[in-house]
Amino acid sequence: MSDTKPVYYSEYLQLDRLLGAQTLESEKAGQPVHDEHLFIIVHQAYELWFRQILWDVDAVLAVFRAEQVDERSLGHTVSLLHRVVEIQRLLIRHIDVLETMTPLDFLDFREHLTPASGFQSVQFRLIENKLGMLPDSRIPINQASYLARFRDGEREQIEASEDQPSLFALVDRWLARTPFLQFGDWDFWREYKQAVEKMLARERALIQTNEMLTRPHRDALLKRFGGTMETFEALFDRDRYEGMVDAGEHRLSYEALLAALLINLYRDEPILQLPFRFLTTLMDLDEQFTTWRYRHALMAHRMIGAKVGTGGTAGSDYLRETAEKSKVFTDLFALSTFYIPRSDLPDLPPDVARHMSFQFTGGNG
Amino acid sequence: MSDTKPVYYSEYLQLDRLLGAQTLESEKAGQPVHDEHLFIIVHQAYELWFRQILWDVDAVLAVFRAEQVDERSLGHTVSLLHRVVEIQRLLIRHIDVLETMTPLDFLDFREHLTPASGFQSVQFRLIENKLGMLPDSRIPINQASYLARFRDGEREQIEASEDQPSLFALVDRWLARTPFLQFGDWDFWREYKQAVEKMLARERALIQTNEMLTRPHRDALLKRFGGTMETFEALFDRDRYEGMVDAGEHRLSYEALLAALLINLYRDEPILQLPFRFLTTLMDLDEQFTTWRYRHALMAHRMIGAKVGTGGTAGSDYLRETAEKSKVFTDLFALSTFYIPRSDLPDLPPDVARHMSFQFTGGNG
Amino acid sequence: MSDTKPVYYSEYLQLDRLLGAQTLESEKAGQPVHDEHLFIIVHQAYELWFRQILWDVDAVLAVFRAEQVDERSLGHTVSLLHRVVEIQRLLIRHIDVLETMTPLDFLDFREHLTPASGFQSVQFRLIENKLGMLPDSRIPINQASYLARFRDGEREQIEASEDQPSLFALVDRWLARTPFLQFGDWDFWREYKQAVEKMLARERALIQTNEMLTRPHRDALLKRFGGTMETFEALFDRDRYEGMVDAGEHRLSYEALLAALLINLYRDEPILQLPFRFLTTLMDLDEQFTTWRYRHALMAHRMIGAKVGTGGTAGSDYLRETAEKSKVFTDLFALSTFYIPRSDLPDLPPDVARHMSFQFTGGNG
Amino acid sequence: MSDTKPVYYSEYLQLDRLLGAQTLESEKAGQPVHDEHLFIIVHQAYELWFRQILWDVDAVLAVFRAEQVDERSLGHTVSLLHRVVEIQRLLIRHIDVLETMTPLDFLDFREHLTPASGFQSVQFRLIENKLGMLPDSRIPINQASYLARFRDGEREQIEASEDQPSLFALVDRWLARTPFLQFGDWDFWREYKQAVEKMLARERALIQTNEMLTRPHRDALLKRFGGTMETFEALFDRDRYEGMVDAGEHRLSYEALLAALLINLYRDEPILQLPFRFLTTLMDLDEQFTTWRYRHALMAHRMIGAKVGTGGTAGSDYLRETAEKSKVFTDLFALSTFYIPRSDLPDLPPDVARHMSFQFTGGNG
Repeated sequence: MSDTKPVYYSEYLQLDRLLGAQTLESEKAGQPVHDEHLFIIVHQAYELWFRQILWDVDAVLAVFRAEQVDERSLGHTVSLLHRVVEIQRLLIRHIDVLETMTPLDFLDFREHLTPASGFQSVQFRLIENKLGMLPDSRIPINQASYLARFRDGEREQIEASEDQPSLFALVDRWLARTPFLQFGDWDFWREYKQAVEKMLARERALIQTNEMLTRPHRDALLKRFGGTMETFEALFDRDRYEGMVDAGEHRLSYEALLAALLINLYRDEPILQLPFRFLTTLMDLDEQFTTWRYRHALMAHRMIGAKVGTGGTAGSDYLRETAEKSKVFTDLFALSTFYIPRSDLPDLPPDVARHMSFQFTGGNG
Repeated sequence: MSDTKPVYYSEYLQLDRLLGAQTLESEKAGQPVHDEHLFIIVHQAYELWFRQILWDVDAVLAVFRAEQVDERSLGHTVSLLHRVVEIQRLLIRHIDVLETMTPLDFLDFREHLTPASGFQSVQFRLIENKLGMLPDSRIPINQASYLARFRDGEREQIEASEDQPSLFALVDRWLARTPFLQFGDWDFWREYKQAVEKMLARERALIQTNEMLTRPHRDALLKRFGGTMETFEALFDRDRYEGMVDAGEHRLSYEALLAALLINLYRDEPILQLPFRFLTTLMDLDEQFTTWRYRHALMAHRMIGAKVGTGGTAGSDYLRETAEKSKVFTDLFALSTFYIPRSDLPDLPPDVARHMSFQFTGGNG
Repeated sequence: MSDTKPVYYSEYLQLDRLLGAQTLESEKAGQPVHDEHLFIIVHQAYELWFRQILWDVDAVLAVFRAEQVDERSLGHTVSLLHRVVEIQRLLIRHIDVLETMTPLDFLDFREHLTPASGFQSVQFRLIENKLGMLPDSRIPINQASYLARFRDGEREQIEASEDQPSLFALVDRWLARTPFLQFGDWDFWREYKQAVEKMLARERALIQTNEMLTRPHRDALLKRFGGTMETFEALFDRDRYEGMVDAGEHRLSYEALLAALLINLYRDEPILQLPFRFLTTLMDLDEQFTTWRYRHALMAHRMIGAKVGTGGTAGSDYLRETAEKSKVFTDLFALSTFYIPRSDLPDLPPDVARHMSFQFTGGNG
Repeated sequence: MSDTKPVYYSEYLQLDRLLGAQTLESEKAGQPVHDEHLFIIVHQAYELWFRQILWDVDAVLAVFRAEQVDERSLGHTVSLLHRVVEIQRLLIRHIDVLETMTPLDFLDFREHLTPASGFQSVQFRLIENKLGMLPDSRIPINQASYLARFRDGEREQIEASEDQPSLFALVDRWLARTPFLQFGDWDFWREYKQAVEKMLARERALIQTNEMLTRPHRDALLKRFGGTMETFEALFDRDRYEGMVDAGEHRLSYEALLAALLINLYRDEPILQLPFRFLTTLMDLDEQFTTWRYRHALMAHRMIGAKVGTGGTAGSDYLRETAEKSKVFTDLFALSTFYIPRSDLPDLPPDVARHMSFQFTGGNG
């Protein structure tokens, strides 16, 4: 029980402000359109959820800005990101509601909204920048930066967020510092490389000695095998990899990439279980946002056809292209290219395995 | 293009009001709890959606308050109710997000909220009353009416909604006036009764003459058949039915019940297709609200265990019991008790069928 | 009650066949992998649902193959397609389950599946062809037709489905025969054209006379207006439109396009309500399939990275490109380009309106 | 690449068996009903998913049957149970598809199915028993055990599952052995008890000394406080608790209950993070099954009204009552009754905290 004064539901939620903030432009113009109310509510609900996402992402950033990320806060961090993913799933479901408005209904009030547009959501831009969306991956609208769409004050706030270390940058730094890449005598990268080479040699032999293969089939398999070889060679050549980073083909630093591989391959070790879930959740996050953008593009296509968007963009095509380009953690998705089967995975030396485990060793079986 | 002044996104959505309305009680008390923000956002999102539901339900009520409900507006009405159903599905999904908060997190700020409670949502009570929830079906809290929980001003608003004709009442009136119950010489109820009697006689004969049945099996089937007989007899006896209405066992008037049966049985006739969809959507609405309440009860059980709710109720048990009692259109659900197979359904006389069809008869095949 | 012999659940569902059909390739190879079971079940569930979709789509095709499509069967048709949409939503949710398998788990049995691939689903190809997916919109795999991936017997079955009239073709024919395009003296296309011209003239005047516009702003608006003009001119020029059809830019015949516009613009008229819902549901169907393909592509990216698919395709890129190209009813989406506000819509002459309404005119208000 | 023979999609999935297992009873009876196909497919899809759930639950049981449950397998176990939860969510979505069949459609083939019923799903009964549903919590049908509904062979299989240690029993044993209940000098229960007493004393004082309270308000608060006291006293008295277990009011053993509390209260300690997630997932599992049963009951009400189920039960009422009674891990839900705020939680002694942490202490910040 608290000794403070009683709290009332409507005051707590400040419902007078919240429920008094729906003004139909169509009504101002003298012809109220019933469905404009839905349009406002959906976008207001979006903004409430963006506020929550920022609230949670900021808490995650605070953890990773620290010099030391301890295991206790990592657990909390995974929970927060998992919440963001659940919110994203909810956002996607909002489209089912918005689609109960038909294009003809939208047309009845659409002209009143010019030039307002979802592109002017400050909060959404902040989320993108805090996660680490690259300014270059934004598609210019009429040759102008996305910032041109914002008013003074808003613009500065968004620009400032571009300069802060993003979740991507902080995760990269955190990964690059993983202590287990080199632990005593054990060198993860050397071990992994040897395992890959053994696996590739075996695969090549299998193709060359399999007498049941027809000549063209063998050639096709060898060609495909050549591609696999090529991919791994590019991975093992640090200079080449870093050249690809400079060229914008990868974003993760070399050390961070190695660490992400290690975490995925040895995810069953107690100390790696949470880092593994953390990386997985980052991909979920990317996947849900991309899905949301894509569904949004489909809906826009239906709503406005080939017309330009209220914000002056090429409408649904713009949205679809954006969905493709907006992923932040693409490198984590690409990581599975380099996985090797568990049977090929080198065992951890007992001392390394022990350091990845708990102090308490009694078990509770 | 409009000739009015340009509209900006953040002004259009009044984001300064919306995004400035989250004040954590735990912060006021000096110990900000991260998850209280989620709690506020979920409930604010609920309230936005309640506002939208009221907006759509009010539009439906306006249609049905008219003396004449024309076919053009019925189509729109079905769309509006279908939208409400999609919103309800969305509300249920909110619980998945809210459950990312754990009981221990909730405990950290729960005491600050006393005695605020979801029971004090004016909008939700308005929705219940506008749909036609019966005052008697509300479970008293500490022997007091649900109205006791509200502040002056709010209470009057809710009480006023109890006195307005509800959707249930208006639908009942509309159904009772269905012109096709008696159309020229054709009497739906007489035809239906004969069909039922023929069906029952055939069924009884089947049981009595089936030589493969053992004695106990036959007795069991006859007992069950007796129950079916009994149910139909109660239906055909208007006085008895109206007695059950007085006793609170049914709510629909006798004429409305007949009309609802007719609409369901002959739903393929053009003029009945929309009324059929309308009745179906009313059941969807009940089903979704009930599911939402039930899921809410499960979550409350998990969140607060056997504790009393912040609103002073018996917590999750209260919520579960409410889910059972809150259905409005129970009589529509029960209707399937009285359906008869299409093969037993009397054909419509050509003249009746023609009046249920379109003026234009050319087809476009 | 039936007089046939009793039916048992497990026999009715033929569970001995169903539940005995899961054989792990990894087990055959001597190293059973736990997660292969999930992989099999998901794909078997997919195939069960494909069977259901074919069952419902075939029933829809049967209705539209008839010379006359009566209004009673149109209602049923909409219900069947709505069911397919609900199934598609369910299929999308399957991906959430499949994603509980991690890339590393998949890797453990992936090699055993070569060259099996979802591309070899006969049923899925049948669905695509029956809906009306164009052979040209399929992306060749290694320069070969998609048919090359199938075995004898299967290939013929799929090829045969290419030659049958698809849902797209039948809907086009049905639309083109809409009786209301020209009804007595009333010519929909002439009326619509006049309305568009009036609307465009008003819009141009607004831009030219608005003194608050800066010079560059006015020029931008005029340029955009020019684009709109251009779009409508292309629409009104039948030859030009048909040239675009020949060039593959549109698929709907000119008459069908007109009819689809009429149905959307006058959807509140009783006789057009179901046709309107029918067209809407066709778009839902496209949208859900596209979303499913897109989510599938995202999952594949995560599962296999930059590797080639088990079927030998370029993996996730292939799937993403397919999502873009696979829409069947694109022309219906584009239709909203040509909508005009309700306030600009010409009223229907009373005689036309009457023919779009019901024989029975008493109302039941 | 594998050296085995190529695998074809349709053979791999055994589609000939799977897609040849749909036989409509209505067709056998001479009047094929279109919607019976949907009914079969939904139930076959259910059974596929039941098979998958059994597959995953069996793997979990195998882990917990071992004398020692190591931390590496606990991570995998949580993933498996999380998968089951995702499957349950999918099962709930199946109802949306099934509801596209209307009661009248169901009536057209319902009589052919007697007495087949979902109650005869062997797999579902196995799942219930393996999770630990109590035989006593089953509601008898016509005074007969649920086993009476099964055929020879099936019955024995289900009975055998009743005798195997269930997940509930194994989890209870595992919890009871938690090493941290008493660790060196530190006694969790003693510490917790003291913290509760301090908290309660403070709360009582607050009520008694708060001069702003009216007399009746104070009395109400004191009464409520008395209830809280009472609840905790019952918890601290082992004999009384065990009496309640004997009486069926609780199921968890006293030690297991203590351990579950410890895990929840100290869930941020590295070694407790996975056990915490494990217990949370068990509740998710209960919640999803209960929701599924409840939604199923609502659907049945709509489908068959007040009729008896094909299986001879009281239909939808039976299903609703079952939903209430079928929870297995109720004690985990009730646990939140005993949580205390983090600020009241006793700190762990450094030595205990260290043993709950990792061997490696360098951090990677």
